[in-house]
Amino acid sequence: MKFNVFTQMEYVVRAPGTLILNIHALRTPNQTVLNEEFTVDPYVKIEEIISAQGENRLMRFEVYQPGTIKVTYNALVDNFYELTDYSQQQETLVAQLDSSVLPYLNPSRYCQSDKLYRLSHNLFGHITNPFEKVVTLTDWIHNNVQYLSGYSNSQTSAFDTVTEQVGVCRDFAHLGIALCRALTIPARYFTGYAYHLYPADFHACFEAYLGGKWILFDATKLVPLNGLIKIATGRDAADTAIANIFGDVTFTAMQVSCELAPDEHNFEPVYYIHGGYNGLSYL
Amino acid sequence: MKFNVFTQMEYVVRAPGTLILNIHALRTPNQTVLNEEFTVDPYVKIEEIISAQGENRLMRFEVYQPGTIKVTYNALVDNFYELTDYSQQQETLVAQLDSSVLPYLNPSRYCQSDKLYRLSHNLFGHITNPFEKVVTLTDWIHNNVQYLSGYSNSQTSAFDTVTEQVGVCRDFAHLGIALCRALTIPARYFTGYAYHLYPADFHACFEAYLGGKWILFDATKLVPLNGLIKIATGRDAADTAIANIFGDVTFTAMQVSCELAPDEHNFEPVYYIHGGYNGLSYL
Amino acid sequence: MKFNVFTQMEYVVRAPGTLILNIHALRTPNQTVLNEEFTVDPYVKIEEIISAQGENRLMRFEVYQPGTIKVTYNALVDNFYELTDYSQQQETLVAQLDSSVLPYLNPSRYCQSDKLYRLSHNLFGHITNPFEKVVTLTDWIHNNVQYLSGYSNSQTSAFDTVTEQVGVCRDFAHLGIALCRALTIPARYFTGYAYHLYPADFHACFEAYLGGKWILFDATKLVPLNGLIKIATGRDAADTAIANIFGDVTFTAMQVSCELAPDEHNFEPVYYIHGGYNGLSYL
Amino acid sequence: MKFNVFTQMEYVVRAPGTLILNIHALRTPNQTVLNEEFTVDPYVKIEEIISAQGENRLMRFEVYQPGTIKVTYNALVDNFYELTDYSQQQETLVAQLDSSVLPYLNPSRYCQSDKLYRLSHNLFGHITNPFEKVVTLTDWIHNNVQYLSGYSNSQTSAFDTVTEQVGVCRDFAHLGIALCRALTIPARYFTGYAYHLYPADFHACFEAYLGGKWILFDATKLVPLNGLIKIATGRDAADTAIANIFGDVTFTAMQVSCELAPDEHNFEPVYYIHGGYNGLSYL
Repeated sequence: MKFNVFTQMEYVVRAPGTLILNIHALRTPNQTVLNEEFTVDPYVKIEEIISAQGENRLMRFEVYQPGTIKVTYNALVDNFYELTDYSQQQETLVAQLDSSVLPYLNPSRYCQSDKLYRLSHNLFGHITNPFEKVVTLTDWIHNNVQYLSGYSNSQTSAFDTVTEQVGVCRDFAHLGIALCRALTIPARYFTGYAYHLYPADFHACFEAYLGGKWILFDATKLVPLNGLIKIATGRDAADTAIANIFGDVTFTAMQVSCELAPDEHNFEPVYYIHGGYNGLSYL
Repeated sequence: MKFNVFTQMEYVVRAPGTLILNIHALRTPNQTVLNEEFTVDPYVKIEEIISAQGENRLMRFEVYQPGTIKVTYNALVDNFYELTDYSQQQETLVAQLDSSVLPYLNPSRYCQSDKLYRLSHNLFGHITNPFEKVVTLTDWIHNNVQYLSGYSNSQTSAFDTVTEQVGVCRDFAHLGIALCRALTIPARYFTGYAYHLYPADFHACFEAYLGGKWILFDATKLVPLNGLIKIATGRDAADTAIANIFGDVTFTAMQVSCELAPDEHNFEPVYYIHGGYNGLSYL
Repeated sequence: MKFNVFTQMEYVVRAPGTLILNIHALRTPNQTVLNEEFTVDPYVKIEEIISAQGENRLMRFEVYQPGTIKVTYNALVDNFYELTDYSQQQETLVAQLDSSVLPYLNPSRYCQSDKLYRLSHNLFGHITNPFEKVVTLTDWIHNNVQYLSGYSNSQTSAFDTVTEQVGVCRDFAHLGIALCRALTIPARYFTGYAYHLYPADFHACFEAYLGGKWILFDATKLVPLNGLIKIATGRDAADTAIANIFGDVTFTAMQVSCELAPDEHNFEPVYYIHGGYNGLSYL
Repeated sequence: MKFNVFTQMEYVVRAPGTLILNIHALRTPNQTVLNEEFTVDPYVKIEEIISAQGENRLMRFEVYQPGTIKVTYNALVDNFYELTDYSQQQETLVAQLDSSVLPYLNPSRYCQSDKLYRLSHNLFGHITNPFEKVVTLTDWIHNNVQYLSGYSNSQTSAFDTVTEQVGVCRDFAHLGIALCRALTIPARYFTGYAYHLYPADFHACFEAYLGGKWILFDATKLVPLNGLIKIATGRDAADTAIANIFGDVTFTAMQVSCELAPDEHNFEPVYYIHGGYNGLSYL
């Protein structure tokens, strides 16, 4: 299904510096960037960096002149998702896990799974179907953590959120990842554009590795799972920051949007339903 | 220079499980494994996993039978180091950093560089030569953190150590990494065998990316920098654990050694000296 | 009921210092110290400090001579407890709380109730009877936190324990206190001698202020509630340390015991039973 | 010297609740409240609570009616300070400390002195004069911590601030207290009205117990030490909150002022000067 995604960000430059932006739609077998346009005004030379494992597409550029710069990104993206039936899914032994996903079992800056081992096992260890396990922990986050902005910040981690029980999409995702890893389920952070997110913004959720596929989960339940355009995946938000700024440059304003392409009409929202076993994956 | 390295570890298995060991000498352009032997007794089938970026060589195997297992690793390794003169080194702009090292600027589980930004800049921001910067912060750790075991544990992070000022090699390395990243210097964890380490054990230190090379630093100053055999590098200890154990399997005993090969005689220990500018790198 | 309590502790003195011990049975309207003996060998002059609110009896003394000192405390103590029926208890408004207990609503070093507000309300906020509320949270701790030594230390706080779900009596008490305060129920730390505690040791639990009385709760459920001899109460373990040591003095050995007096025969253990409403208080 | 102090605070009440305000000037031997007026509009019945040790004067009242309430406090206060020469001051042994100040050696919610022991000794342990020790640590905070609002919050503690090196007066005070206690110097939080504070607000600093007196220190250096009207002292901000709110009541607006009384003319600001040994104490 095709979506038009759009970002515009403004920065004030006071001294020369470097920006690394992470706002481009990823190119994957299941996500085609039909066309895109990226401009920085005033003009600068841009370097595109595609990470070794293809988890993100970074745009790096230097800014020299004091003043305001405006960054605009516009793309038409066709994404395609698959549904997989997990009703008969067995637990995957670590011995059988694809070796490329092993790093996603490790604790990371915002997902201290090593500290959540007992809690995660106490709450979810008895569930044998791994899809049901992750659905249940996602529901548990949804039911126990209050979605409120202003109560968490860029240093808030899953270890905080599990007790403080308040946060935004980033915090919900970190907690989901930490609980999964504590259960020996590889999990990673997903950042993207989201259709039907109000107010419009970038969105974060997470993917768990189940039966050989990265399946999408969103503890916020704010948007349909099939309306997401992937920007990046990573261990957590430390790997997938929208912008990394080096130098005396300040972020001042942002607009984001994600709309159905004009020739698309039949968007049928997909949410996981209670008792269901269909997992959604992009790529 | 050639070293014989050796590890023997014992585990008690109570129920079937999986072990992932990270004790093999890495194969790199500057480190040749001349011969090696790895046995698990009783015999099990071993899978060797070489990570995509070549940061480690993991051995994964399943254990089924309750009882004791003994793991033995033995290798003759020839390592080769380079010294680089950094006396004229300029700061590398982020815009010019090799894109593959960008992830080593991100905060990680044990290296919360995002929280040490002001402290690192207050203490070391005025030093312009980047080699001198890292030498100085390494000395600062050495002078302010007491090397004592029993005061830190597997959850201790750089954010703890910078204030509690006590720990072991792992904690010294994490703090070094966090301070570097806070200064926009890519840094990674290094684990290996160490010649002249008493009591014999695995050792941890860190590498900082300076002028296009990964340069070795060791805030413990316990061993000569040129007597290390690299096992793995990673973002921090979460990526480079000696053993990851899944299942009811318990570690019970370990021996480690690292000796000069019999035909080597002229080991000249290299330490950084005050006011020097020669950085040591493997690979 | 009368109990013989006993402690013997040994310290090695390397340089002059001061010790403040908190091991004496408290004298309260409901706890009579029939006789007691306290000796420090070699002899030193002891100062007894009774805190302004009567929460503890500290013994302060200086040690000068390098060598070993042995501290012995022996007492015959008659304690008396009351049972109060809370089946009809209403919540006490803060406006009606005795002003002397207000400080026990504040967060403290090991009981960060300010961070557990949402969690405590989500789990226990719906229970209207305040006794039932505290019994339920005590049971929740008992069922979710594993009693194991070696997993927590002197810096572990309720904020850690609520997620890590492992600890000793001290950690169980801190978590109980934090959850109570988060529910606007004053709560304090209780340290004492405990009959039927195996292995023998000092014990910690907590008191919640309900309907004008300090009622005893013990989430470890290791000992009968009516076999405790109170040493001290305080905001948390920071206020009630068994020993505060200033100087180069090291603790080396300890014995503790708490036995029924020879002329007592009919000890009927009291535990809170499921669905019961009788709260036990000393003093 | 006489000061007019004034506060006006507005709250929106949505459901019945209780407020405990801590905004009254304390009455002490050195601080005389010549006249004062406290009104809550609409009228409610107020209970004044004076804490057992005289550390604060709390006003407790219930609010019933949904709507806005306005609290106004107005007082003319005469404070008197003493200067004590500490140039010959020896360290006070714990054995000689007044027993009433021992609790101010304990770690508390925001002042985890137990974690700052090594750091504090490394930085300040070599200084023998205790006044100079506290002046030096106050200067160290002033020079290393940036005064900026928006970077800390109500959960920020000394353990955070010592590394993050940014905060407001509350954070500066907590760090000062924690460093003192780690050096076995009793220290407590001081909250008050401050002359010459711009923008006008409540202020926080700390007192250290030196040679039998509570001496005032302010690491922010924002105001003269002799222009403070004491509201309360306590272990840290947990004990001395301006307002504790129970129920669905929200703080909406505040004004604070502290002016010299019209008949006072010769205010000579007192700050500690480099190399000086005069400590200022109220009471």
